[in-house]
Amino acid sequence: MSRKLYSLCGADRTRSFSPHVWKTKMSLAHKALDFDVVPVGFAEIPQVEEGAPKLVPLLRDGDRLVQDSFAIAVYLEETYPDRPSLFGGPGGMAMARFVEGWSQTTLHPTIVRIVIKDIHDSLDPVDRAYFRESREVRFGTTLEAVAETGRASLATFSEKLEPLRHMLKFQPYLGGERPLFSDYIVFGALQWPRIVSPQRLLSPGDPVTDWFERCLDLHDGIGRTVTAA
Amino acid sequence: MSRKLYSLCGADRTRSFSPHVWKTKMSLAHKALDFDVVPVGFAEIPQVEEGAPKLVPLLRDGDRLVQDSFAIAVYLEETYPDRPSLFGGPGGMAMARFVEGWSQTTLHPTIVRIVIKDIHDSLDPVDRAYFRESREVRFGTTLEAVAETGRASLATFSEKLEPLRHMLKFQPYLGGERPLFSDYIVFGALQWPRIVSPQRLLSPGDPVTDWFERCLDLHDGIGRTVTAA
Repeated sequence: MSRKLYSLCGADRTRSFSPHVWKTKMSLAHKALDFDVVPVGFAEIPQVEEGAPKLVPLLRDGDRLVQDSFAIAVYLEETYPDRPSLFGGPGGMAMARFVEGWSQTTLHPTIVRIVIKDIHDSLDPVDRAYFRESREVRFGTTLEAVAETGRASLATFSEKLEPLRHMLKFQPYLGGERPLFSDYIVFGALQWPRIVSPQRLLSPGDPVTDWFERCLDLHDGIGRTVTAA
Repeated sequence: MSRKLYSLCGADRTRSFSPHVWKTKMSLAHKALDFDVVPVGFAEIPQVEEGAPKLVPLLRDGDRLVQDSFAIAVYLEETYPDRPSLFGGPGGMAMARFVEGWSQTTLHPTIVRIVIKDIHDSLDPVDRAYFRESREVRFGTTLEAVAETGRASLATFSEKLEPLRHMLKFQPYLGGERPLFSDYIVFGALQWPRIVSPQRLLSPGDPVTDWFERCLDLHDGIGRTVTAA
């Protein structure tokens, strides 16, 4: 198959956990496009596709190479316009940037602290040293100290989801009656801890949990092809 | 004119300050629809339109009476489809609910604490007693104690705007290259303290401030028809 998605993995190469790669997996499934997953560890990323990329997701689609989950979604929308839309029009494409902004500035910084040690422990030994060093530089402290602040924020994480709860009073998805890429942005953020950590960020009975479960069911349950940690 | 917008005001009936009414003023201007503003104090709201409404904005458009800023935007989009779109398609309409969720669960609870005493002081004496009593029941403490927590949160308010800053790296408006109703949702939230309070929530040089100034310039500067407090 000419369509390949490079996907970050740990020691278990079947357990793709990157939130950004999950956005792209859901986008491809939404467009009903087949693809092969190519699992790569952190240390392998610079070696794929002649060293072009520094980040995943990276999509090889025939002679096109596209990087970054949002850019890939836009590429898919423009290249496969006859398949179900990922944005629901230009307004939806623009506002998906705001949803990305909310997810990446509000959810991600907390989630990464909660799961950082779980990520480390799931990595191939060759990646653990890189991960520890790069993240300890980024956070200015040890992984263990970051994880400690993560544990403290687990109890209040649910409060960050209030904007979703408001939206879910009116409609079942960010995209309205059906999911759009904006749903996959937030789904990716929450699929990440589901796969990499035994800690649970969502609670039974929460409308956000119900929405997340609906997302796991989408596209023949592609989100459930990796079980919860 | 058959189109009337009931708009909350204080003792100075020219200084309409309700964030939700501002969303509707911007929506009407976006659709290039003329309207008369009917200023009402809190105590007058139950008396307009035969006692139908309990909240503003309330739009009388010929024989239609529409309440709630989001419902009014949807009504205008459906009733005046040949005029500039407020949503940019169905995806944009759906995601505007998320923007509303973010604004109302993240920005509004903090802004109301910052400006609550300023709102009280701006009201007509007949409304002050109602406002104090209803808000003191809602917050479970005195207006002055609420305002004290507001002062404490003023310094960190800017952090709440990070999702907007991320979006503004890619495009000038939530709606993309041009503003949509989602911009007016957030604009309304920030126009409210601009009008009612001498406290400044936005800082010079912040991309969010630049976006807010662009919004104030829109539609012949309708947002500047009420000066900053």
